[in-house]
Amino acid sequence: MTHPSSSFSTIRLKPKSNARAIRHGAPWVYDNELVMDRRTKSIPAGSIARLEDEERRFLALVAVNPNSRIVARVLDRDPDAVIDQTWFEARLSVALAHRETMFDQPFYRLVHAEADGLPGVVIDRFGDTAVVQPNAAWADVMIEPLCAALAKVAGLRTVVMNGTGRARSLEGLEEKTDILMGSVDAAIPVLMNGATYMADIMGGQKTGLFYDQRPNQAFTQRLVNGKRVLDVFSHVGGFALASLASGAAQAVSVDSSASALALAEQGADAMGASDRFVTRKGDAFDVMAALREEGELFDVVICDPPAFAPSKNTVEKGLRAYERVARMAAPLVKEGGYLGLCSCSHAADLDTFRGACNRGIGRAARSAQLIHTGFAGADHPLMPQLAESGYLKALFYRLMP
Amino acid sequence: MTHPSSSFSTIRLKPKSNARAIRHGAPWVYDNELVMDRRTKSIPAGSIARLEDEERRFLALVAVNPNSRIVARVLDRDPDAVIDQTWFEARLSVALAHRETMFDQPFYRLVHAEADGLPGVVIDRFGDTAVVQPNAAWADVMIEPLCAALAKVAGLRTVVMNGTGRARSLEGLEEKTDILMGSVDAAIPVLMNGATYMADIMGGQKTGLFYDQRPNQAFTQRLVNGKRVLDVFSHVGGFALASLASGAAQAVSVDSSASALALAEQGADAMGASDRFVTRKGDAFDVMAALREEGELFDVVICDPPAFAPSKNTVEKGLRAYERVARMAAPLVKEGGYLGLCSCSHAADLDTFRGACNRGIGRAARSAQLIHTGFAGADHPLMPQLAESGYLKALFYRLMP
Repeated sequence: MTHPSSSFSTIRLKPKSNARAIRHGAPWVYDNELVMDRRTKSIPAGSIARLEDEERRFLALVAVNPNSRIVARVLDRDPDAVIDQTWFEARLSVALAHRETMFDQPFYRLVHAEADGLPGVVIDRFGDTAVVQPNAAWADVMIEPLCAALAKVAGLRTVVMNGTGRARSLEGLEEKTDILMGSVDAAIPVLMNGATYMADIMGGQKTGLFYDQRPNQAFTQRLVNGKRVLDVFSHVGGFALASLASGAAQAVSVDSSASALALAEQGADAMGASDRFVTRKGDAFDVMAALREEGELFDVVICDPPAFAPSKNTVEKGLRAYERVARMAAPLVKEGGYLGLCSCSHAADLDTFRGACNRGIGRAARSAQLIHTGFAGADHPLMPQLAESGYLKALFYRLMP
Repeated sequence: MTHPSSSFSTIRLKPKSNARAIRHGAPWVYDNELVMDRRTKSIPAGSIARLEDEERRFLALVAVNPNSRIVARVLDRDPDAVIDQTWFEARLSVALAHRETMFDQPFYRLVHAEADGLPGVVIDRFGDTAVVQPNAAWADVMIEPLCAALAKVAGLRTVVMNGTGRARSLEGLEEKTDILMGSVDAAIPVLMNGATYMADIMGGQKTGLFYDQRPNQAFTQRLVNGKRVLDVFSHVGGFALASLASGAAQAVSVDSSASALALAEQGADAMGASDRFVTRKGDAFDVMAALREEGELFDVVICDPPAFAPSKNTVEKGLRAYERVARMAAPLVKEGGYLGLCSCSHAADLDTFRGACNRGIGRAARSAQLIHTGFAGADHPLMPQLAESGYLKALFYRLMP
């Protein structure tokens, strides 16, 4: 599993490609920037290679995948680096130190891909269990030393590989889920913001847990004491359970997934808050319409929908959906109450998303203040030069009397 | 002080002006959008008038200032509204309810101008004392009913008018500072984020207190336990005292103002943290250079400079200054430590400011993660359609080992 540098293949930037960007920290090389000769095309996906500029000067050790538009991902700028378990241990230790500074309990995103020096690799930690998403070919190849390093550095007992989702298909990788170490019996209690969430990590994305909303849930907690809260697209109870943990009189979770709502109920139960917790299963738009028919009003309404605009060609449709969420949610907010609107769409930037939300609130004939703009938590670091790519945005409005 | 609507002057939008924008919530009308005839030009600054569209349909009651580029500011969309003490009480009650939801203690920005329905009016609350900045002519005229309403709604004993700063000069208003009610003897202890700050509210901006950094100081608090912190452009100890309140081993405040540092020392003393607090008076750039010479390294460095780019024609120069701050601060951060860089410049937007910071860190030959982007606190609400105008940005980087 070690790769002595001298034996690596070499790939090369085309003349006039932007070697300067790579030298300044750019993490990716696209197919149209490389000399894609037969030799480069024949490099097995997941191999490590030396990247050189057009004048054959070394730039970086890279992970290669000729089947992806991102053919090369920078691993190390040291030509003599050895990509082995020890190398993984060093990267993981740096990532862990940051999370241990930020969080009192071992529940967080431990590795957020490129920004943590492990391109395409996402690792979420749930106590002594970790879920690894190897979303680049090299991570599939290196999964064993990565897993061993993870166990050693973070003292983990169980490591699960979750090989599902859109990122892998863009890399030409098949879906697979596997337990790499230890065992998983039941849903795992996750402690965050004083709430207890139940994460069914073998159930995949639909009933796992997202750590990214932590700061936005914490912000919500400052609005809800003694109040009635509606959490639309609630998943396993993200904003609802956070609200219950900070004194909400009642929280109502809306989701179309019965299994997600069952986990939310387990969480409320574990918190001793079942008597203040209500679930409504159904399509979020249908339930919002029904609540309006019923004349229901809430002090705080939060909508955290799935990515309506995951890619550039879905942006327009996605923005219409975000506008519709705002338009249908606003009438459910009491005068002087609060409305939180979230987007996890890469392709809808902050200004565009805010525009859609503003229009929706306006169409509901409500006037508003924007009181807070939040992003993903600090366990989701970004590469500074790609920071506009921050996918998660949360806008908190106060709807005026 | 009441204005029966029928007796108001009328001002009118030019043909083809954007009446729709006003109907959709835009708060301002510029001189080039109005029929600026002799009658309109002769309306005394600070008067209330009826704004009509080109077809003489009522749009809003507005405050008029023919000496400003913003000739009209929307006060009320009800043609029969009476702008008197009762009207101020209603607006202030709505503003107060939000702050009382958000904050446990009476230390906050109570009114943030247009977004709180009081155009050009800024009110900061320090316990039972308030400082009013009437940055539009109408607020000067109406200062008495405003002050009476403020005392009644918020139970204040002392109200100070601070009529200094750039905003007033753009409105053609003279500088004046006055005690409208009560008395001010000494610096006021301000409780925020568990720290105690001393605010000399009669000393004006230089030694007052800014509430806008509250969430960014709270974020900093999560990084500093047991650590050594450098607070550059510290003013009365903003980030330094917050750090001491959450367990920093030492905090060093750098500022060029001896009076600001003296207040910071008083704050540290009130917190019983004087033994962990150090001040260094001097030009921030000079002190950063000196610290580097001395080989000093800190776990956390925060730079919160004054607005280097207050207006459009100062943006380029301002961005160079922000880049220089980043370049000089980065070498003072330990490997794996944190660097917080702030801008309170309206004219430098988030992307541009981040670009300048990224370049500065790069020129210091450091690589970084961006872990957090923060804005002004929730007591600084924005009008949704003007939200890109949020002036305060705080970027937190981790500088990699």
